[in-house]
Amino acid sequence: MFMLQVGIIGAGRIGKLHAANIQQMSHVRVRAISDVCISGLDNWASELNIPVITNDYRDLLNDPDIQAVFICSPTSTHASIIQEAAEAGKHIFCEKPISFSVETTRQALEAVEKAGIKMQVGFNRRFDLNFKKARDVVQAGTIGIPHLLRITSRDPEPPSPEYVSKSGGLFMDMTIHDFDMARYVMQSEVVEVYAQGANLIDPKIGELNDIDTAVINLRFANGALGVIENSRKAVYGYDQRLEAFGSKGCVSINNERPSTAVVATSDGVEMDKPLFFFLERYTQAYIQEVRDFVRSILFNEPIVCNANDGLQAERIARAAKESLVCRHPVTLELKTPVINT
Amino acid sequence: MFMLQVGIIGAGRIGKLHAANIQQMSHVRVRAISDVCISGLDNWASELNIPVITNDYRDLLNDPDIQAVFICSPTSTHASIIQEAAEAGKHIFCEKPISFSVETTRQALEAVEKAGIKMQVGFNRRFDLNFKKARDVVQAGTIGIPHLLRITSRDPEPPSPEYVSKSGGLFMDMTIHDFDMARYVMQSEVVEVYAQGANLIDPKIGELNDIDTAVINLRFANGALGVIENSRKAVYGYDQRLEAFGSKGCVSINNERPSTAVVATSDGVEMDKPLFFFLERYTQAYIQEVRDFVRSILFNEPIVCNANDGLQAERIARAAKESLVCRHPVTLELKTPVINT
Amino acid sequence: MFMLQVGIIGAGRIGKLHAANIQQMSHVRVRAISDVCISGLDNWASELNIPVITNDYRDLLNDPDIQAVFICSPTSTHASIIQEAAEAGKHIFCEKPISFSVETTRQALEAVEKAGIKMQVGFNRRFDLNFKKARDVVQAGTIGIPHLLRITSRDPEPPSPEYVSKSGGLFMDMTIHDFDMARYVMQSEVVEVYAQGANLIDPKIGELNDIDTAVINLRFANGALGVIENSRKAVYGYDQRLEAFGSKGCVSINNERPSTAVVATSDGVEMDKPLFFFLERYTQAYIQEVRDFVRSILFNEPIVCNANDGLQAERIARAAKESLVCRHPVTLELKTPVINT
Amino acid sequence: MFMLQVGIIGAGRIGKLHAANIQQMSHVRVRAISDVCISGLDNWASELNIPVITNDYRDLLNDPDIQAVFICSPTSTHASIIQEAAEAGKHIFCEKPISFSVETTRQALEAVEKAGIKMQVGFNRRFDLNFKKARDVVQAGTIGIPHLLRITSRDPEPPSPEYVSKSGGLFMDMTIHDFDMARYVMQSEVVEVYAQGANLIDPKIGELNDIDTAVINLRFANGALGVIENSRKAVYGYDQRLEAFGSKGCVSINNERPSTAVVATSDGVEMDKPLFFFLERYTQAYIQEVRDFVRSILFNEPIVCNANDGLQAERIARAAKESLVCRHPVTLELKTPVINT
Repeated sequence: MFMLQVGIIGAGRIGKLHAANIQQMSHVRVRAISDVCISGLDNWASELNIPVITNDYRDLLNDPDIQAVFICSPTSTHASIIQEAAEAGKHIFCEKPISFSVETTRQALEAVEKAGIKMQVGFNRRFDLNFKKARDVVQAGTIGIPHLLRITSRDPEPPSPEYVSKSGGLFMDMTIHDFDMARYVMQSEVVEVYAQGANLIDPKIGELNDIDTAVINLRFANGALGVIENSRKAVYGYDQRLEAFGSKGCVSINNERPSTAVVATSDGVEMDKPLFFFLERYTQAYIQEVRDFVRSILFNEPIVCNANDGLQAERIARAAKESLVCRHPVTLELKTPVINT
Repeated sequence: MFMLQVGIIGAGRIGKLHAANIQQMSHVRVRAISDVCISGLDNWASELNIPVITNDYRDLLNDPDIQAVFICSPTSTHASIIQEAAEAGKHIFCEKPISFSVETTRQALEAVEKAGIKMQVGFNRRFDLNFKKARDVVQAGTIGIPHLLRITSRDPEPPSPEYVSKSGGLFMDMTIHDFDMARYVMQSEVVEVYAQGANLIDPKIGELNDIDTAVINLRFANGALGVIENSRKAVYGYDQRLEAFGSKGCVSINNERPSTAVVATSDGVEMDKPLFFFLERYTQAYIQEVRDFVRSILFNEPIVCNANDGLQAERIARAAKESLVCRHPVTLELKTPVINT
Repeated sequence: MFMLQVGIIGAGRIGKLHAANIQQMSHVRVRAISDVCISGLDNWASELNIPVITNDYRDLLNDPDIQAVFICSPTSTHASIIQEAAEAGKHIFCEKPISFSVETTRQALEAVEKAGIKMQVGFNRRFDLNFKKARDVVQAGTIGIPHLLRITSRDPEPPSPEYVSKSGGLFMDMTIHDFDMARYVMQSEVVEVYAQGANLIDPKIGELNDIDTAVINLRFANGALGVIENSRKAVYGYDQRLEAFGSKGCVSINNERPSTAVVATSDGVEMDKPLFFFLERYTQAYIQEVRDFVRSILFNEPIVCNANDGLQAERIARAAKESLVCRHPVTLELKTPVINT
Repeated sequence: MFMLQVGIIGAGRIGKLHAANIQQMSHVRVRAISDVCISGLDNWASELNIPVITNDYRDLLNDPDIQAVFICSPTSTHASIIQEAAEAGKHIFCEKPISFSVETTRQALEAVEKAGIKMQVGFNRRFDLNFKKARDVVQAGTIGIPHLLRITSRDPEPPSPEYVSKSGGLFMDMTIHDFDMARYVMQSEVVEVYAQGANLIDPKIGELNDIDTAVINLRFANGALGVIENSRKAVYGYDQRLEAFGSKGCVSINNERPSTAVVATSDGVEMDKPLFFFLERYTQAYIQEVRDFVRSILFNEPIVCNANDGLQAERIARAAKESLVCRHPVTLELKTPVINT
């Protein structure tokens, strides 16, 4: 029986989430986890039956029993770890974004390509049944030729100023998921971006030269238009909707709620708020993306969300930033080397 | 050009509603209105251009220009007025119920049959687009062979004890609409009734020997089962839903609301309450039932909701009352003389 | 008792609609209708009890019994008729747009201002209960400070090439309603516009130098962002939705459907398509806008949708066209003379 | 760290489901599984790391390391195994119904009571977040004093005639879940039952003296009324809804669907069908009921769904059967010995 052994690099919230999910799966086990700060990890790791804890991720790269690593460390470390992991012949699951610089990302991906390993980027929404249904409907031709895509993507509360300062900005940190979703559902590359932004929620975000509210227009290679709406603060919960419209119809994806209950009283008719945030909303998607990654390695199947997908979303984010600053639409060249593992 | 002239007997809420609706229609005019108490009607009638006001309904029956009468007087007067109107050769629109006694109703209908006039009963819900759609779906065979019918019918607030005392009881006053709807949607006669009731809302209703909450089970001639849920007080508004289930599917009719607005805040996600009561909910149905009545007369088309429909709903109401009292199911004979004008 | 006499200029689809609605109202009557082509109008006018038909609109302006005119003739004639009607002291209801040139419109409005008459522009959606609810919710502060407005506005089928050629283009013909709705709901002026367009539906529209699909970005004086999505062809029906999002929540307006029926079969779960087009969707709004116009005149109340509202929507449409052509955002000066009657 | 060891008696569909769920949980492990037919179980058990397979459930009762057993064998064996397990001092999780005879069940429960062990009955729906929300809303007083409960419970396809013949009949096999749900949500005992049934789906079910369509009326000790609608065949999927109505409002629970997608085309507007059947619909509930059972034992907390709950649902099912046969309502005595572990 196949059994994949993996190492987790970075024991923050998302690294721990992947570890816990993996330990409940068949055919895969966490052999080791590394973090620059490992104090206090003992109990957690022992409860999950993770045998090795280390503060040096190179221990994982040097462990011949580990076939794949999950890179969950800060974004600034991703690219160099990818290079090292690729040289060590480890398959890679890397959280988004790969880096804050398209050039840096491109170099890291060349190392991946050269090593011939598999690499998956953590665009978890591709594994959500709702968004997958939207893509399937578009792909099946049910809505005909796509004309318009709309993504509404709003977080329930803004991150701390400290987080914002290291996030790479709204487009690279938050909208990058929507850029990926746009390519995933429309199955066409983005060739033009125009971005509007505003600082309406927390003045501290503005002081850090970032925005918290945005509307981003896209034009796709197939001629369709797209628009993404972002806010860092939807007080009613995580607002994650999408609509693709075409010559033969329209598919809309709506929010998930804790229950289907509807309560009617003399005050009004009320239903549940959307699920609070990404951990609640994408619980199953986080599990499914790892399952698919494991299966891709064990059975040599294609990666649903590969290195090139990571690169392309970063390119769009970069163009959006440029558009925001220079206040005009920015064109994206289509001829980009496709690194498709 | 055809022009139907009608007389309205009874200038209460419903008589006035019909008059106002008629005066906005083509091909029909209110020529006269009668009520035992006509003081204060002048302004209202003059604004609606109704030329004649009288306190004797016989003036309407004797007026050769009047071809049809709307009987909107108290239920206790319906049957005798029907007899007189039939003898006078007037077509009849009669509010429900025709009478509180199946025998009395039957005699009135014999007069109608003998006179060869048209008679429509005021089951306004048949003219609502939602309920009509349910019937059409059932009739088209979309749900296959009907197995189960459910009607949820709840008023927003109980009537006054004075009204209750003259109403004929919950089944004859309120559920009678649901009994008619059951026959209309299922297109099959009711052959068995079992009724449960309770006095949960207003003790004064119990003191009048009536109930305010009920569940009534039906069995149809086609073998299907049915259930009606009634309450005199749904604090969130008029609750009017129906569901027909069969071998190939299910059709559900839901409440109408003032707007489609959904408001999401940190407190929850809220939509509008259902429309308040029958005047708001069935505004268009009240107009349509009169339009159809007028057309039936002018073009000699069949009545959507005829005298027999009035009789049958009363028979079910009567059986429900008997079941409630004797606490066992009551069988209804199918062989009833069909008075179908 | 007050009674307003009006004249209708232009007996096309919309002129006839207003005439028919008016004839069913209290306190207002159509005294005359004019059109360059009056052959075949006789029967229709006689059925509606409209006494005068003429092929010269000046007959209406010269009739001392007519206090107000409805300008429903082609757009190219609006401005000069407004000038004449204002000079004749008639109150004016003018269909949108007032003209295709902001300067022309401005001159017409100066005549209105000088004459001291009332003028309403035919932005019928302001009188729809759904959109009114959205505005009321925003105005009440329920969603806090507005951050983002989204309008989805799609027609069920594109107009004929002949219509398109005289329409003034998508923004002036179709989006102008959405521009007005944006100002109405957000209660703030638009200060920047960026427009993307495409010709995806009918190549003939492209040949006429027009577009059929568009995304238009707005920035409001209060700092909020807005986005409008347009398509000339939504095969499932007239798609009219709006969402306003702010610091304390979100209000969404959805489509109206012929019935609330939901049909579940082995093939799926289906509900009604949206109402087909503007005549079905805004039936009540067309009635209400005239009712409010009549009341504004009879009781000297403010116009819900005045001449300045017409002007501002045209300015935004003009800016959108410029943005589309020059491919960069266009700024709108706020200091415009407000003509508020 | 606590660790509960359990044995599974019966390796059918539900026994295997519990085993698989348990092996993914913390603090509990399946130590052994028994079935009269164990051929072919090896691979499955080894993949799940279940060390012991046996064809004699007594091996589990005799194993001192096993603290609790899951009784998933045919209903006819439940009562005697309960007696033995209780005598062996094992905590018991027993699938519904406990037996087909209220007297037999009562005797089994006396053994449980005497042994002082914990016993949970497999009413999985209590652990579904939707139904739990309905109960919470009722308990919180949001709907005021409960007046009416409605449960719509329809399976997607009828079981095989062989299954039906051993099922104990519709009420004992299927409606028993609804009877439990009625008690759970209303928090009041059922004191009267009236049942209507029909054989409309599969004639073979009728030949077995069973029904496939039913409406069951309930009267609760608190005066409220209830109604349950059952069908063995809803072609559009598992239909599981509930509505509780009271003096201050109403709470409704609706179906769960695979996705929130809505697809609009010229053919109509379609959404997903409900989840197919109980395994899909109650996936999380099956996990949660076991988690709660484990916690109840490890931390000596009350059982959510105890032996008395099993008994009461069976009493109602028995009364429903009696009502169906004798065609009149049947009264249930309230004074039943409460076996509350």
